[in-house]
Amino acid sequence: MNKNRLEAFSDGVLAIIITIMILEIKVPQGEDFIDLFPLFPKFISYVLSFIYVGIYWNNHHHLLQGLTKVNGKILWANLHLLFWLSLIPVSTGWLGEHYFAKAPVTLYGIILFMSAIAFLILQNVILSSEGKKSLLAKAVGNDSKGRISQSLYLIAIVVSFFNEWISILIYFVVAIIWLIPDTRIEKILLEKEEK
Amino acid sequence: MNKNRLEAFSDGVLAIIITIMILEIKVPQGEDFIDLFPLFPKFISYVLSFIYVGIYWNNHHHLLQGLTKVNGKILWANLHLLFWLSLIPVSTGWLGEHYFAKAPVTLYGIILFMSAIAFLILQNVILSSEGKKSLLAKAVGNDSKGRISQSLYLIAIVVSFFNEWISILIYFVVAIIWLIPDTRIEKILLEKEEK
Amino acid sequence: MNKNRLEAFSDGVLAIIITIMILEIKVPQGEDFIDLFPLFPKFISYVLSFIYVGIYWNNHHHLLQGLTKVNGKILWANLHLLFWLSLIPVSTGWLGEHYFAKAPVTLYGIILFMSAIAFLILQNVILSSEGKKSLLAKAVGNDSKGRISQSLYLIAIVVSFFNEWISILIYFVVAIIWLIPDTRIEKILLEKEEK
Amino acid sequence: MNKNRLEAFSDGVLAIIITIMILEIKVPQGEDFIDLFPLFPKFISYVLSFIYVGIYWNNHHHLLQGLTKVNGKILWANLHLLFWLSLIPVSTGWLGEHYFAKAPVTLYGIILFMSAIAFLILQNVILSSEGKKSLLAKAVGNDSKGRISQSLYLIAIVVSFFNEWISILIYFVVAIIWLIPDTRIEKILLEKEEK
Repeated sequence: MNKNRLEAFSDGVLAIIITIMILEIKVPQGEDFIDLFPLFPKFISYVLSFIYVGIYWNNHHHLLQGLTKVNGKILWANLHLLFWLSLIPVSTGWLGEHYFAKAPVTLYGIILFMSAIAFLILQNVILSSEGKKSLLAKAVGNDSKGRISQSLYLIAIVVSFFNEWISILIYFVVAIIWLIPDTRIEKILLEKEEK
Repeated sequence: MNKNRLEAFSDGVLAIIITIMILEIKVPQGEDFIDLFPLFPKFISYVLSFIYVGIYWNNHHHLLQGLTKVNGKILWANLHLLFWLSLIPVSTGWLGEHYFAKAPVTLYGIILFMSAIAFLILQNVILSSEGKKSLLAKAVGNDSKGRISQSLYLIAIVVSFFNEWISILIYFVVAIIWLIPDTRIEKILLEKEEK
Repeated sequence: MNKNRLEAFSDGVLAIIITIMILEIKVPQGEDFIDLFPLFPKFISYVLSFIYVGIYWNNHHHLLQGLTKVNGKILWANLHLLFWLSLIPVSTGWLGEHYFAKAPVTLYGIILFMSAIAFLILQNVILSSEGKKSLLAKAVGNDSKGRISQSLYLIAIVVSFFNEWISILIYFVVAIIWLIPDTRIEKILLEKEEK
Repeated sequence: MNKNRLEAFSDGVLAIIITIMILEIKVPQGEDFIDLFPLFPKFISYVLSFIYVGIYWNNHHHLLQGLTKVNGKILWANLHLLFWLSLIPVSTGWLGEHYFAKAPVTLYGIILFMSAIAFLILQNVILSSEGKKSLLAKAVGNDSKGRISQSLYLIAIVVSFFNEWISILIYFVVAIIWLIPDTRIEKILLEKEEK
């Protein structure tokens, strides 16, 4: 089995997920700049979700690089991840439609949390297939970023019942955590390559 | 002729089919959790169809692995399969919109049945091109899973005129049949590889 | 320059065109089989357009196989073809919405004609780049099928002002012309290969 | 790291962006040719945006050909470009819906300008990764076309407050600038190849 189609199919689904979110931003009725104002919360939630899907694509890209052989479990763990990510657009639309009301913020957190769990499952299925001594196992390490994100999502879900703005802040913080120190993993992979 | 574009195009179409189904789940009007309740049947039918398209992608992936040369017949048998699968989203939408009423359940069964027949045709066209002694012919074997599914779809279609819930149960049963014992085929392919 | 991305991008656009047409078939309001009846003209026009996009993907696949080097002209001739094909979904929607009224039938013919011309331009640009003695030039030959189709589209456009049903019949006839004798070209390519 | 998935994902997103714009052109209500008239501004803005996305795909194709190694910065600079390009469909829809009113024309210019800046950032990130003596650095040269476009977008944005038609003219002029002299870069690359 080759992993090319697994990557191609995942890329296709992720490309569609990241792009159909824009369909939630409807063309404004009026023709003045002021008509763009009601779109602002939708735009912010679009930016947030675009970054998240980008992060998942990025991490998926890294994870599958270490993959050498595909099996049925991996195919289904991958589809399971894509399932949760496919719920991001509708959740984003709800978030943007209701100016970040409580319930949409909670739901958004639940979907981010489930996506994170699905990614963890995919990672574990691949690791158990590749072996603990594989290059991938070393690159993943103790996966502190993953565990911190999962904890923060849980906190954000609970907090959203009291103050939705703190939850949104947490979602942005998690996004920033993933955006910044990507270089560390690249260094490890680079060092391995050089040896 | 190479099979890369056949795979790429099929992956693209399948990725879009699996993703546009989410567009049937409209952003709820209200902003409370209770507003998510009417979406529940839509969500269940989305899950069911997501699994089915996933199964087809999976089986398509396996089938085309054994393919060595592409011809016009294969291209059209493949497009024929994609045609029936492309009807799954609208059928899923109808199923979810009407709380699993009788007619949508029947139609859903008809489309699953036609997709299964289209897959069978593609399989036969590929087998007749590859030859009966090919690796693929051995891997497919007597295709008992395929024939059981087709029979169950037919039963579900008939049953849907009397009790739609039994039909829905059958659709889930068929999905589970395909989800579980994928490992058997992999073993055969693996054994072949080792020889 | 490599042709992989040209193929990948074209496959992506064609896959989306063939799939978003299904979005024109809206989920029926009622829950009985009788509610599917108004969808019938839409379904027929969907089938027709699905076959046409399938034919274009098929021919595009064949044409690009003979391509050895990509240049700017080819990229733009290819985008020009994709532009006309991208108008098929909205034209199909109009055709299905109005039970095959005169104007939608004419427009559909115009778009099929322009797509055929765009394909011809792409073919000529590629032929002039590859040279008259190339394998592709021999495979294309005098392109009688192409010229017959273009003539039939023109006839159908004119006829549509008097009787739209004859035009629709012509569209189906052209589709069947392309569906049937694909094997002839394959034979020529196969003979070349054997030499 | 390989650049195949970067290209595949970008191709997917660009293919979807260029195709979902057609969804803004709704099927006309009536069944006569006169019902197509109100679609005319939408059609013109669709043509303009189709050309722009085509240009970006074309330039992206060229830029990534010179790329030899992918890193995290490049992935995110690429996603940043895709983000701005993903706003073209909704902006195009607004432009077409309001017969080229002032505010939509300004917004369209802003999004084209931001896309151009995002492309410049991607180009710089790739150049700083590849080195100033790389083949790419020579091919890009002083990037006069890029700088002229950015200036013209800025002028068009300012002008749109006074006369939107001049701005639209400028958008078409920039598109034509990119369409015509693509051959120059190809020549340089060809000369390099021959050496």
